[in-house]
Amino acid sequence: MDLAVEKTSSGREYKVKDMSQADFGRLEIELAEVEMPGLMACRAEFGPSQPLKGARITGSLHMTIQTAVLIETLTALGASVRWCSCNIFSTQDHAAAAIARDSAAVFAWKGETLQEYWWCTERALDWGSEGGPNLIVDDGGDATLLIHEGVKAEEEYEKTGKVPDPTSTDNAEFQIVLAIIRDGLKEDPKKYHKMKERLVGVSEETTTGVKRLYQMQANGTLLFPAINVNDSVTKSKFDNLYGCRHSLPDGLMRATDVMIAGKVAVVCGYGDVGKGCAAALKQAGARVIVTEIDPICALQSLMEGIPVLTLEDVVSEADIFVTTTGNKDIIMVDHMRKMKNNAIVCNIGHFDNEIDIHGLETYPGVKRITIKPQTDRWVFPETGTGIIVLAEGRLMNLGCATGHPSFVMSCSFTNQVIAQLELWKEKTTGKYEKKVYVLPKHLDEKVAALHLGKLGAKLTKLSPEQAAYISVPVEGPYKPPNYRY
Amino acid sequence: MDLAVEKTSSGREYKVKDMSQADFGRLEIELAEVEMPGLMACRAEFGPSQPLKGARITGSLHMTIQTAVLIETLTALGASVRWCSCNIFSTQDHAAAAIARDSAAVFAWKGETLQEYWWCTERALDWGSEGGPNLIVDDGGDATLLIHEGVKAEEEYEKTGKVPDPTSTDNAEFQIVLAIIRDGLKEDPKKYHKMKERLVGVSEETTTGVKRLYQMQANGTLLFPAINVNDSVTKSKFDNLYGCRHSLPDGLMRATDVMIAGKVAVVCGYGDVGKGCAAALKQAGARVIVTEIDPICALQSLMEGIPVLTLEDVVSEADIFVTTTGNKDIIMVDHMRKMKNNAIVCNIGHFDNEIDIHGLETYPGVKRITIKPQTDRWVFPETGTGIIVLAEGRLMNLGCATGHPSFVMSCSFTNQVIAQLELWKEKTTGKYEKKVYVLPKHLDEKVAALHLGKLGAKLTKLSPEQAAYISVPVEGPYKPPNYRY
Amino acid sequence: MDLAVEKTSSGREYKVKDMSQADFGRLEIELAEVEMPGLMACRAEFGPSQPLKGARITGSLHMTIQTAVLIETLTALGASVRWCSCNIFSTQDHAAAAIARDSAAVFAWKGETLQEYWWCTERALDWGSEGGPNLIVDDGGDATLLIHEGVKAEEEYEKTGKVPDPTSTDNAEFQIVLAIIRDGLKEDPKKYHKMKERLVGVSEETTTGVKRLYQMQANGTLLFPAINVNDSVTKSKFDNLYGCRHSLPDGLMRATDVMIAGKVAVVCGYGDVGKGCAAALKQAGARVIVTEIDPICALQSLMEGIPVLTLEDVVSEADIFVTTTGNKDIIMVDHMRKMKNNAIVCNIGHFDNEIDIHGLETYPGVKRITIKPQTDRWVFPETGTGIIVLAEGRLMNLGCATGHPSFVMSCSFTNQVIAQLELWKEKTTGKYEKKVYVLPKHLDEKVAALHLGKLGAKLTKLSPEQAAYISVPVEGPYKPPNYRY
Amino acid sequence: MDLAVEKTSSGREYKVKDMSQADFGRLEIELAEVEMPGLMACRAEFGPSQPLKGARITGSLHMTIQTAVLIETLTALGASVRWCSCNIFSTQDHAAAAIARDSAAVFAWKGETLQEYWWCTERALDWGSEGGPNLIVDDGGDATLLIHEGVKAEEEYEKTGKVPDPTSTDNAEFQIVLAIIRDGLKEDPKKYHKMKERLVGVSEETTTGVKRLYQMQANGTLLFPAINVNDSVTKSKFDNLYGCRHSLPDGLMRATDVMIAGKVAVVCGYGDVGKGCAAALKQAGARVIVTEIDPICALQSLMEGIPVLTLEDVVSEADIFVTTTGNKDIIMVDHMRKMKNNAIVCNIGHFDNEIDIHGLETYPGVKRITIKPQTDRWVFPETGTGIIVLAEGRLMNLGCATGHPSFVMSCSFTNQVIAQLELWKEKTTGKYEKKVYVLPKHLDEKVAALHLGKLGAKLTKLSPEQAAYISVPVEGPYKPPNYRY
Repeated sequence: MDLAVEKTSSGREYKVKDMSQADFGRLEIELAEVEMPGLMACRAEFGPSQPLKGARITGSLHMTIQTAVLIETLTALGASVRWCSCNIFSTQDHAAAAIARDSAAVFAWKGETLQEYWWCTERALDWGSEGGPNLIVDDGGDATLLIHEGVKAEEEYEKTGKVPDPTSTDNAEFQIVLAIIRDGLKEDPKKYHKMKERLVGVSEETTTGVKRLYQMQANGTLLFPAINVNDSVTKSKFDNLYGCRHSLPDGLMRATDVMIAGKVAVVCGYGDVGKGCAAALKQAGARVIVTEIDPICALQSLMEGIPVLTLEDVVSEADIFVTTTGNKDIIMVDHMRKMKNNAIVCNIGHFDNEIDIHGLETYPGVKRITIKPQTDRWVFPETGTGIIVLAEGRLMNLGCATGHPSFVMSCSFTNQVIAQLELWKEKTTGKYEKKVYVLPKHLDEKVAALHLGKLGAKLTKLSPEQAAYISVPVEGPYKPPNYRY
Repeated sequence: MDLAVEKTSSGREYKVKDMSQADFGRLEIELAEVEMPGLMACRAEFGPSQPLKGARITGSLHMTIQTAVLIETLTALGASVRWCSCNIFSTQDHAAAAIARDSAAVFAWKGETLQEYWWCTERALDWGSEGGPNLIVDDGGDATLLIHEGVKAEEEYEKTGKVPDPTSTDNAEFQIVLAIIRDGLKEDPKKYHKMKERLVGVSEETTTGVKRLYQMQANGTLLFPAINVNDSVTKSKFDNLYGCRHSLPDGLMRATDVMIAGKVAVVCGYGDVGKGCAAALKQAGARVIVTEIDPICALQSLMEGIPVLTLEDVVSEADIFVTTTGNKDIIMVDHMRKMKNNAIVCNIGHFDNEIDIHGLETYPGVKRITIKPQTDRWVFPETGTGIIVLAEGRLMNLGCATGHPSFVMSCSFTNQVIAQLELWKEKTTGKYEKKVYVLPKHLDEKVAALHLGKLGAKLTKLSPEQAAYISVPVEGPYKPPNYRY
Repeated sequence: MDLAVEKTSSGREYKVKDMSQADFGRLEIELAEVEMPGLMACRAEFGPSQPLKGARITGSLHMTIQTAVLIETLTALGASVRWCSCNIFSTQDHAAAAIARDSAAVFAWKGETLQEYWWCTERALDWGSEGGPNLIVDDGGDATLLIHEGVKAEEEYEKTGKVPDPTSTDNAEFQIVLAIIRDGLKEDPKKYHKMKERLVGVSEETTTGVKRLYQMQANGTLLFPAINVNDSVTKSKFDNLYGCRHSLPDGLMRATDVMIAGKVAVVCGYGDVGKGCAAALKQAGARVIVTEIDPICALQSLMEGIPVLTLEDVVSEADIFVTTTGNKDIIMVDHMRKMKNNAIVCNIGHFDNEIDIHGLETYPGVKRITIKPQTDRWVFPETGTGIIVLAEGRLMNLGCATGHPSFVMSCSFTNQVIAQLELWKEKTTGKYEKKVYVLPKHLDEKVAALHLGKLGAKLTKLSPEQAAYISVPVEGPYKPPNYRY
Repeated sequence: MDLAVEKTSSGREYKVKDMSQADFGRLEIELAEVEMPGLMACRAEFGPSQPLKGARITGSLHMTIQTAVLIETLTALGASVRWCSCNIFSTQDHAAAAIARDSAAVFAWKGETLQEYWWCTERALDWGSEGGPNLIVDDGGDATLLIHEGVKAEEEYEKTGKVPDPTSTDNAEFQIVLAIIRDGLKEDPKKYHKMKERLVGVSEETTTGVKRLYQMQANGTLLFPAINVNDSVTKSKFDNLYGCRHSLPDGLMRATDVMIAGKVAVVCGYGDVGKGCAAALKQAGARVIVTEIDPICALQSLMEGIPVLTLEDVVSEADIFVTTTGNKDIIMVDHMRKMKNNAIVCNIGHFDNEIDIHGLETYPGVKRITIKPQTDRWVFPETGTGIIVLAEGRLMNLGCATGHPSFVMSCSFTNQVIAQLELWKEKTTGKYEKKVYVLPKHLDEKVAALHLGKLGAKLTKLSPEQAAYISVPVEGPYKPPNYRY
C-alpha cells in the first residue's frame, strides 16, 4: 500500500483497502447490531447524555465488523475515534471501509506488512495538533507499548542525547518500533510525553496485554491508569472460551476444508482459550491431546477425558496443532520437521511467537507453497513432506476466518464501553492511579444481564430472606470477588 | 455466461468460470488427495490394469475439489469423463478449472442460472458423434431424469408427432427440461433412445436420487441398471451424517458469522442428515428442536435429549431453521412471516423445494437485500423485520461453504468408483437388469477398511473359532444384510 | 436353595428368595408402570378383548421389575404365565416375590447356581399335566435350546436307545442341560416332543438368541416359528444402545464406586451395545478406546473421536474393560495378567464366555477376594496385583445393578407383547412357518409412537401431497425395510 | 440406636451400626487407597516425620470410605482422631466399622435422627479429660457452630445466669443444639471456652461452611483461625463439579432406576455443583433447564445450550428437579403440588433447607409411601398423584448412593491434610489470626500434581526463558491469585 493518508469528503482521515466495500460493510454491521445487545443497550442508556463528549479515543483492536459496532457505540456516546488493527491479518476490509466512510478515522487493512502495521498504529495515535488521545482501547498493548517506549526514549534523549538504535535488537518488529520513535524524536522530542500527559487511561482487551500491564505496574513504569477488561468474567470466561470454541473450527474449515472428525488434534495450553479450542475439536469428532505446564489445568483436561502429554510425545502422530498458551517458542521448527505430511499448524494466541515461523523460514532448503492467502504449505527437503501453516503463525481465527462472532464480542465490548465511560468520568477525581484495575462485579453482572433477553432467558429473583441468608444484596452482586465461575 | 463451449489446447471441451484458477485448484486437489485414501487406494489397486478403458462416463455431481479427485480416479482407471454440477451453487470454480485444464470435459460454474444448469447437463451428456455416455455418475438424478424424459418424449413424438410443451407445467425448472428435449427432438428424434441403448448403467449418489430410481423401478420405467450408492453404509451413515455435522456449521459461519451458542435451532427431519445437523448444532451450544413425521426417528431424537415439536410450535421463538427432509413444502412463507428478526433459514436437503422460496419471492411488498452472494435478507412489509435465507433455499453447505470435507467424501466416492467398475465389468453379462442394486456388504466393508489406516486404527482379527462361533467368515462380511450400524 | 416348589394360598407354584419382599416389589412395579407407556397402552387397547385367553406362556427373561410389568401385561391380556430368569444374577428378588404372590408362577432368585438355574428353566416349562407352553418369551434362547436339545435326544433315544451323556462335553453348563434331558427321558421319552407339538412359537429378545435362531433356521433344525424381537428398530436401536448407555455406568458405580472421569476405558465391540457403552464412558470423562473386527463399525468409532486399537495394544494401560461383542474369548487370562492393579473387567454381552473366567479360576496361585457379591478382586501371584471382575463375567448391568431402566424396556417389551399377540392370533392360520420373522415396520413405528407422549413430543403430520411426493402412506410406514436409522 | 458409647478391645470409643462390617469396610478402603494418590503421597512424604504427633483432631465430615482413607492418613501422620458424620444419611456403615475397629473413635451411622446426629457431634468433640480437640476438620461447619454457640451461651450465662432456651426457636434442629449446650452448661460452664482455647484452628470443606465462616469473620465473632479448603481450586473446581457430575446420576439411578434419557430435568443453581449436575443430566440424554439468580452463571448456562427459566415456568412439565443453590426455600410445597405424577425431587446442596420438606410433611392430607429407605413417594390428596422425594431433601448423592468417588475426594482431602499440617505447624507462630485463609497457590498446584500420574499425564516443563517471558517461576505457581480456571 502507498502509505498516504486519505480523507473523506467530510475531511476525516483514513487508509483502508477498498472504500467501495463500505456498503457491504454497513449491511453486515447492521446484522451484527442485532446480535450485540450489550452495545445497543449502552447506546440506548447513555446515548442521550453523551457522556463521552469531548473524549478522543484511539483504538488498536482488530478492525472487524464487531469492532465497528463498538466504535459506533463510542461515537454514539459522544467520542471522537481513531482506529487501527492490532494484527496484520485481522482487519475485515468491508468493516474498515464502512467505518472510515461513516464514523471514525480508520487505518487498517487485511494483510499489512509490519512496517504498515506500525504506521497505522502511529496514525491512530496521531490526533494532529490536538496532541494525542485521551483514552486508549488496546488489545495486546501495542498502542500502550509505543507510548511507553517513546517516553523512555525521550527521557534517555533528554539525558544523554542518544536516540534509539534499531540495530540494537534482533527482533524485526521491535526494530520498526525503535525506528518510528527515533524518527519521532527528530520531529518533536516531547511527542510521547505530551501524549502521556493527555492520557486519562487505557482499557486493555486481552490476556497478553494485561500481562504486560501487570509487569509494568510491578516495575513501577506504568504511565497511566489501566482497566483490565480481559479479567471481567463476562470477557475471559466468554470471549476467550466460547469465542474460540466457535472460531477455531471456523478458521480450520475456511483455511483447509479438512475433516476434523477422526483426526488427532493437539492443543497446547488449557487455559480459557485452550479449553474452548479443545471442546470444539472434541465435539467435532477429533481425538484431542492437551499439553500443559500447569498441573491444575492439566487435571481439568483429564477430567474432561482429554489426555495430557508433551508435544514431543505426540508430534509425529497428530494431524492438527493449535497453540493457545500466550507464551513463546511452543512449536519449534524441530517439531515441525517431525510432523506427518500435511499436518496443520496454527496459533490462536495473541502474538505470533508461539510457532517458530522464523525457524521455518530459515530452515535450509525448505519450500513455501502458498495455497491461498494465510494458508501455506511448507515442504521440508529431507522428506518431501509438508505441513500446512495458517496465518503465518498469527491468530488463525482472525487471519483465516472472521474472528469471534458478534454475540460474544458484545459481552467483551460492553465491558470496554463501561471501562471507557468509567475512566472518562473519573478523569479528574484521582480515583484511578497509575495501576491496573478490574471492573467491579456489579458491572460485570450487568454486562451479562444485558445479554440474557436476546437468548430468551428469565432470571429467578432472590427474596429478601434468601438474600439475607446468603448475605448478598437482593440485586447483587451475588458472588465474592474470588469466585471462579 | 456466454453459453459457448471452449476447448483446451489439446482439444478437450469445457466451460468454466475462470481458467486462471486452475493452479489454485490443482494445489487444493493435491491436499485433498492426502485426505482421500479410498480413492488413492483405487488408483493404486486398479490403475495398472485400466479396467475402465473405453468407458465414457458422464457425471452430474457437485464439481468440487473432492469430485475432482473422483474424476481423476476414474480417468486414472482408464475412463473418459465429461462432467457437470448437480446444483447451481455447488461448483468450486478452481476445481472446475483444474479438471477442465488437466483431465476431463467440465461444464460448471458457481452461480449458474437454471437455463445454464441444464445447458451444462446437456453438454456433459453430449459425447458428439460417439452418441452418449456408457456410464453415469449421478447425484440427485438429473442426468438420469433428462434421459428418461427424453426417451418418453421421443416415444410420444414417434407415436403422435407431438413435441413437449414447456407451458404445460408450472414448474419453471421443468419447463426448461421440456424445452431442451423439444429442441433435441428437432435435431435428432432418436437422440435419447441412442443414449439409453449405449448406457450400461448409472450409479446414484444421494437419497433423493435413489428415491426417484426406486419409483421408476416400481413403475417399470427404469431404462437401465442402477447402483444405489447412497445406501452403502459407508455412504449414508458417513457422508450424510458426519459430512453434514461438519458442513452445516461451516455453511452457517461462512454465510452469517452468527454465534451458534445460545441460539434456538430447529432441524426439520431427523434422518441421517438431520442427525448430523442436530449433533453439530447441539455441540456448538445451541438448543436444538427437531420436527419429525416418523415416530422412530422422533424417539431417537428424544433419547439424545432433543425435543420433538412441530414447526408451528416453535416458529416464532427459534433463531436458526434447517431443512433436511428430502420432502417438499417444509418451511412455507407463512412460517417465515412469523419468525424473529434475522432468523436464519436454510436447507441442506438435495432439492430446493423444502423452503418456499417462490412464496417468499411473490409475497406482496417483500424486500430482498443481498448481503453477499448466497446470503439474502428478506424484509416483510408488515413488520419491517427480516429473515436471512441462505443459498436461495438450495444446499447451504455447498452454496455457502465448500460442501463435505475430503475424508468423508472419499468414503462415498470410493463406493462410486466400485459401482462404476462393477457396472462396466458386467456390461455384457446380464448380471444387472433394469433394477436398482446396492453394493454387496464385503465391498462396503472394504471401503471402510481403506479409510482406517489414515486415522491410525488397528482392527482386531477374528480367530477361526470365533468366526465359527458367530457364523461369519474370518475375513468378513461380518454382519447380516439388514444390520443397521 | 432347597429346590422344592412352593405354592401360594391360591395354589400357584413358585420358588423365590423371599416372599416378604413382595410389597416392596409391588411399589416399584407401580413406579415402573408410569415409565412404561407402551405396555400400559397394550393393556388399555387389548385388555378388554382378552386376546391371549387360553395361551400358556413360558418366559425365560431376567426377572426384574420391568419384566414384572411385562408379565402382568401378558396376564392382563388373558394369558397364563410361568417364568424364570435367563441369567443367574439378574433376578430382582422383590420383583420375583411380587409376581409370584400376585400374578404368575415364578422360579427365580438372584445368585442361582447353574444347577438351580436350569432347574428353574425346567420348572418354567413344566405346565404339569397340561404338557407345556403354547408360547415362549425367550432371552438368549435357553428355553428354546432346552426344547431343541430335548427333542434331539428323544429322537436319538428312540432310534438307538442311547441317552445323553453329560461327560461327553467339557462345558460345565451343557453337562447340566444334558443331565436334565437324560433324567427327563426316564420319566417321559416324549416329553419334549409333546412340548414342541403344543408350541405356537417363540419371541426372542436379544442378539445372541437371535443368532442361534438364524443358525437353526439355516440348518433346518428350527422346530417352531420364531419372531426376532431384537431386530425391531425400537428394540435394538433403543434397548441395546440407550439401555446400555444408562446401565453400564450404573453397574460400574454400584459395583466399584470408581470415578470414571480421567480413566482409560476399553470397549470391546462397537455394535449397538458397544456404542451405548462407549458413549456413556466418554460422556463421563473417560478416554475410550474401542476394539473391533468390523471395519465399518471401526470407522464409526473413529468419526466419534474414539480410537480403534487391539486389546494387546492397550491392555496394560487401561483402567476399565467392557466386553460387548456377543463373541467368545475376548479377554483371556493372559490379558488379565498384564493389566494394571485394580483394573476393572466386566461384560455386558449376553453370555459369560466373553471373559475367560475359567482361565482365571484355574490360574496357578491366583487368589480371589470377594469384596461384595458380584464384585471380586483376583490377585495374581507373580505381581501381587489384582483386577476387579464384575458379576463373574456375566451381564454386569443386571448382576451389579438393576439392568436397563423401565422406559427403554417398555419399547422392547411392547414388541414382545405384539409378537406374542401375533403368534397366538395366527396359531392356526399357517402364516408363520418354522422360520425367523421380524415384526412389520408399521408395528415398529407404533411401538415408538406409544412412547412419545410420555416425553412430551409432538409429531408433524404429512400432507397427502407430501406423502405422495415421497411415496409413502400418510399414516406410515415411512421408511423402506432396509433403512438404518 | 441406644446412645451409649462402646469401646474396642484396645479401649477406643465408638458408636457404629454394625461392627461385623469392618472387614468389608477394610476391603473397600484398600480399593479406595489405590484411587487416592494424593492422600497416599502425603503418607509417603510426611509419615516418617510424624508432623501431626500430639495433634487431637475432631472431624465432622461424611463418614464414608473416602473419609476413612483421610482419617487413616491423619493417623499415619501422627494424629489422634475422633469423628462424626456431618449428615444423618451420609455414613457408610462398613467404613465406620472399619475405622472404629482399626484407627479412630467414630460416632456415626446411616440414618441417624437429628438427636442422634448431635449426640455424635458432641462425642466427636469430647476428648474427655483432655478437654477438646486441637484441630477440627469440618464440613458444613456444624462442629464449629456448636463451639461458637456454646461459647456465646457460656458468656451470656456468665453475665446473666441465663441458659439457652430451646423453645426460643422454631428450627427443630437448632432446638437440639440449644438443649445440648444448656445441658453442657450444667456440667461445666466453661466447657466450650476450654475447647476454643485449645483449638489451633479448623479446616472447612464446603461452600456452605465457608460462607458461615466469612460471615463470622465479618462480624468479628470467629473464635479461631480457619482454612477455607473449599476454595482451593483443586477442591471446588473438581469435587463440586466433577464429583457431582458423577454422583448425581448415581444417586438417581440407585434411588429410582429411572431412565434419564428423554426426561426434562431442572437444575436449580448453576454454580460448580449445578454445572456438574447439569452436565451429567445433559450427557445422559435429558433436556436440562437451569434456574439462576446470577446473570453471569445464567449466561454460562446458555452458552452450553441450556435454557434459563424460572421454576414457575417449568414446574409442571419437568420430570426431575435438583437443587444445588446453597440457599433456602428453593422448591416449596406449592411447587411440588403442581408437578407431574412421579416427578423426582432431590437436593445435592449441603443443607436440607433447599426443599420445603416441612411444608410437604404438614400438607393437609398428604400421604407418604416409603418405597425404600431414602426414597419416598408423597401423594397429594387433590390429585392422587405423587412425587418422589430423595433422602428426605438431604444430600441425595450421599443419602441414596455413596457420594463422590475416591479419586476426586483425594483432591479435596489432600487439601484438608495440607491445611491441618499447616495449622498445626504454625500453632504457636501467630501466622494465622482469627480469620479465614485459603491455601497458597503453590500448594493447590501441588495437590493437582499428585493426581496426574495415576491418570498417565505428563506435564510440559517451562524453559527459564519461557518462565521469564510470562513472569512466573519455572516451578510455579503459574497463575495469578484471581485466575478462574
